[in-house]
Amino acid sequence: MKRNIITVPIQKMDHGSVSSEQDLLAVEEPLQIRLGKHDVAITMRTPGNDGELAAGFLLSEGILREPSQISKIVTSRRNGVTVHVTDESELDLERLERHFYLTSSCGVCGKASIEAVQAMDCPTLPRNRPQVAIGVIPALPEKLRATQEVFDRTGGLHAAGLFDAKGELLGMREDVGRHNAVDKLVGAAFLEGRLPLNDSILMLSGRASFELVQKALMAGIPVLAAVGAPSSLAVELALRFGMTLCGFVRGERFNIYSGAGRLNC
Amino acid sequence: MKRNIITVPIQKMDHGSVSSEQDLLAVEEPLQIRLGKHDVAITMRTPGNDGELAAGFLLSEGILREPSQISKIVTSRRNGVTVHVTDESELDLERLERHFYLTSSCGVCGKASIEAVQAMDCPTLPRNRPQVAIGVIPALPEKLRATQEVFDRTGGLHAAGLFDAKGELLGMREDVGRHNAVDKLVGAAFLEGRLPLNDSILMLSGRASFELVQKALMAGIPVLAAVGAPSSLAVELALRFGMTLCGFVRGERFNIYSGAGRLNC
Repeated sequence: MKRNIITVPIQKMDHGSVSSEQDLLAVEEPLQIRLGKHDVAITMRTPGNDGELAAGFLLSEGILREPSQISKIVTSRRNGVTVHVTDESELDLERLERHFYLTSSCGVCGKASIEAVQAMDCPTLPRNRPQVAIGVIPALPEKLRATQEVFDRTGGLHAAGLFDAKGELLGMREDVGRHNAVDKLVGAAFLEGRLPLNDSILMLSGRASFELVQKALMAGIPVLAAVGAPSSLAVELALRFGMTLCGFVRGERFNIYSGAGRLNC
Repeated sequence: MKRNIITVPIQKMDHGSVSSEQDLLAVEEPLQIRLGKHDVAITMRTPGNDGELAAGFLLSEGILREPSQISKIVTSRRNGVTVHVTDESELDLERLERHFYLTSSCGVCGKASIEAVQAMDCPTLPRNRPQVAIGVIPALPEKLRATQEVFDRTGGLHAAGLFDAKGELLGMREDVGRHNAVDKLVGAAFLEGRLPLNDSILMLSGRASFELVQKALMAGIPVLAAVGAPSSLAVELALRFGMTLCGFVRGERFNIYSGAGRLNC
């Protein structure tokens, strides 16, 4: 298992006085994702759960649909992961190439537009499910933070947590890239055959961008909550697909940008 | 000029009570970057300064070296920007294709490794220049925030600021993507013929990833400071090229990860 934290010597400045200390850093390394013989993407990620990351990425790009399509996942020590499929002829490799051109595995770039998401035959979210008591949402950031092993020590990682409608934690992942944290979390559920996650809430430690809404959508997650701000396109995508999107979840306050019907006072 | 903020109706929750309000969102839209006839990348960005973004991106990828290589930059209303060059035969188009494969314009993905940066013939940073009084660094985040027009209103944008060795602001850009904010800032200086920025400090509102250190390096910036944590690979890259890297710049405290010789008590 690769390390996801390293210790480095630093000089700490405090009101102009300096001391030598050791600091913990979140590890960032490239990962080459392959689908059979095809190079798909390189992402900078925190080592660990690489198979989940690759599976979640291929799901969110609309390339894989079912865990049964995967015959095996092979991770190499040299920052590579290869997803082998049972029947390559089933795959829309043109989409792969199109996306290979249009997208990468990264958090902010590469999605041409909302139309590109629609063209993926993304899942339809259940209309008024799950029903979430309004008090559940403000409690999620603290629950997420309580599980963040690496973040607590380095302050350098994004976290993504999956919760049920009552706010019970179902799983969490952390990574230097917020998109990777979501790919790992969704990928784990995908590999276990738990998709669509129609009764789940996805909680993010940072901001909500377009691509993170897309990833939630492809996993069938109807409720997305973020500690930070959503972007305009994230709100647009959530509105288009009827996703509940909450932002600025801080203390007892938060904003509802779409899908308020799933939240009950 | 495209809007970089939009207003949306939201429901604001506060201790269980709800009110309908208007909220400001940072705009996120795709931008297609072209170099002559070649498609280079698509990035999700905040509209505005698209020419700077494209120029800064091509510089940081090692594809452009001098502003004189550019004959004109044409931005379209349909989220496209094309950089035309005076002599295409000068360009390392193979690098473009290699990077087209390995990288995108995004913040976290695509750089294969530190070796890839070395292979770009990146500028050598001046060894002990600039000399920065230690008190200059802690004042930078507040100075940066004071100039953040959009951030103040939406809370949704990353900012990048360029300062001189005395902490005077030289320029700033903000964007939904932190890499875009740096590309715009560096791109503006590049287009004005102000590179290498050998006497400047780059201040970031968020974390310092590998790619952001790379972008500073390609612009010849010797000092990088960030409000958030650096990643392991960011520190490694800074050490390798002798860049001063400060993280967790908060209040009167900060950490020095490399290049302490440029900071004077």
